[in-house]
Amino acid sequence: MTATTAPGPDAAAAVLALYRGDRAVQAAGIRIADIAPGRVQLELTPGPEMGNGHGIVHGGWLASLADTAFAYAFASRGTPGVTTHIDMAFIRAAQVGQTLTAIAEEYHYDGAAGIYDVAIVDGGGRKVAAMRAHGRIPRTKQA
Amino acid sequence: MTATTAPGPDAAAAVLALYRGDRAVQAAGIRIADIAPGRVQLELTPGPEMGNGHGIVHGGWLASLADTAFAYAFASRGTPGVTTHIDMAFIRAAQVGQTLTAIAEEYHYDGAAGIYDVAIVDGGGRKVAAMRAHGRIPRTKQA
Amino acid sequence: MTATTAPGPDAAAAVLALYRGDRAVQAAGIRIADIAPGRVQLELTPGPEMGNGHGIVHGGWLASLADTAFAYAFASRGTPGVTTHIDMAFIRAAQVGQTLTAIAEEYHYDGAAGIYDVAIVDGGGRKVAAMRAHGRIPRTKQA
Amino acid sequence: MTATTAPGPDAAAAVLALYRGDRAVQAAGIRIADIAPGRVQLELTPGPEMGNGHGIVHGGWLASLADTAFAYAFASRGTPGVTTHIDMAFIRAAQVGQTLTAIAEEYHYDGAAGIYDVAIVDGGGRKVAAMRAHGRIPRTKQA
Repeated sequence: MTATTAPGPDAAAAVLALYRGDRAVQAAGIRIADIAPGRVQLELTPGPEMGNGHGIVHGGWLASLADTAFAYAFASRGTPGVTTHIDMAFIRAAQVGQTLTAIAEEYHYDGAAGIYDVAIVDGGGRKVAAMRAHGRIPRTKQA
Repeated sequence: MTATTAPGPDAAAAVLALYRGDRAVQAAGIRIADIAPGRVQLELTPGPEMGNGHGIVHGGWLASLADTAFAYAFASRGTPGVTTHIDMAFIRAAQVGQTLTAIAEEYHYDGAAGIYDVAIVDGGGRKVAAMRAHGRIPRTKQA
Repeated sequence: MTATTAPGPDAAAAVLALYRGDRAVQAAGIRIADIAPGRVQLELTPGPEMGNGHGIVHGGWLASLADTAFAYAFASRGTPGVTTHIDMAFIRAAQVGQTLTAIAEEYHYDGAAGIYDVAIVDGGGRKVAAMRAHGRIPRTKQA
Repeated sequence: MTATTAPGPDAAAAVLALYRGDRAVQAAGIRIADIAPGRVQLELTPGPEMGNGHGIVHGGWLASLADTAFAYAFASRGTPGVTTHIDMAFIRAAQVGQTLTAIAEEYHYDGAAGIYDVAIVDGGGRKVAAMRAHGRIPRTKQA
């Protein structure tokens, strides 16, 4: 894991705390490739158990990967929030066995709510899917 | 599996053909509870490996369950399509170990495209999440 | 205006109060056709100034009509809320001069948030567009 | 109108051809501020007839402005497409009489489909709304 854009200790610590308790993400084999404030990059090499009979990765796994990237980027701001809404477009099929990269970037953050864009790209750099995710920080946790 | 609303052999056959090749769905333990033309009901009892450290089901699994319900309801029309877009709202947390039911119902279908609404409810009948999913039938497969 | 499903005085009064102050809606010529708790039906006959050069109604007007139907159905519950998110699919073109009907129906309402589905249909009963809209009631106004 | 990032004659010509036939956009007073390939910037100063009783701009007008910015950015690629889906978050209220700027930028374009992000900002540079819009180029027009 590298932290390219001056994450500060808080961003990485906040994301790693979330990751350590996140059995679903660990079980899926999702890896953290980079953390910066408001930005997280994840990787997943989908196994056959994530595919359909034709070797295409199930859309649900793409959603899981993108949703996780969003949640971690949101959490990198220091206060864990909840996902309220996701919107996702599927652009091209992903192949089992080929590593996918999900990059979540901040579109809007104001301490109470956040909007993040997540792109999933394949090994050739082609866009596989695009998610826009919306979250809120519960009122009791707002700074 | 029951088929309550006169599925005809085609709807059930089309969905089961998809299910048999769908390793990701089988590995997740998603079960088919009902099939009818344009409507499919699934069940999932999320295990600990689908949760985070607080016993809350990961949003990605909710997306997977809803996306599968959509895909099967779409396929129940006889011609497998592709998902183009999903839109999902998360309404309340789901608990690990409590069975979830996903009901996908047709909103629009015209032979080339389909729109389906999927509700995920918990054991108490409370809405956990709501997806609206959009798919297309590849032009070469259109009737 | 008729109120077919036992609106009670509150639903109609709440919607009409909103409508009376709503210059944008009045200027557009949007008419209220029906009010019930959690459900509102509107009509609009798009004039040439709402079209493009080919006599097709601009998508923005479809969004305005659907958004208004949502806002009124949400307000019919008695407490005006704010729109947080809309998701809209355009299914077929609408023609200038042909009356459109928008029906907003409640999908979820819990006093703090609401989700409504709006269908726009043309004179032949064909779906023109489908919106799912999400709103919240500001915390200071929650019962 | 300026064209800051080397539009080439085609982008501007394609957008202006669309604009000239677009009565709805002209009637609304929407102005073109910039055109580049895959990117369009529009402006609108909402009048009182675009507001509600409290001087807040109606959400439908925000949707119209964003949808237009998307459509023009998509058209800047040379082949007019159709809008299939919009997804829009409302971040803060916009005031009647204050100029809004909508910037549509390309997220994905492959000759058959396009995804564009539109931000609406107020005079203070604050985000008012964010749309992600999806369009397709009819098969008969694809290059």
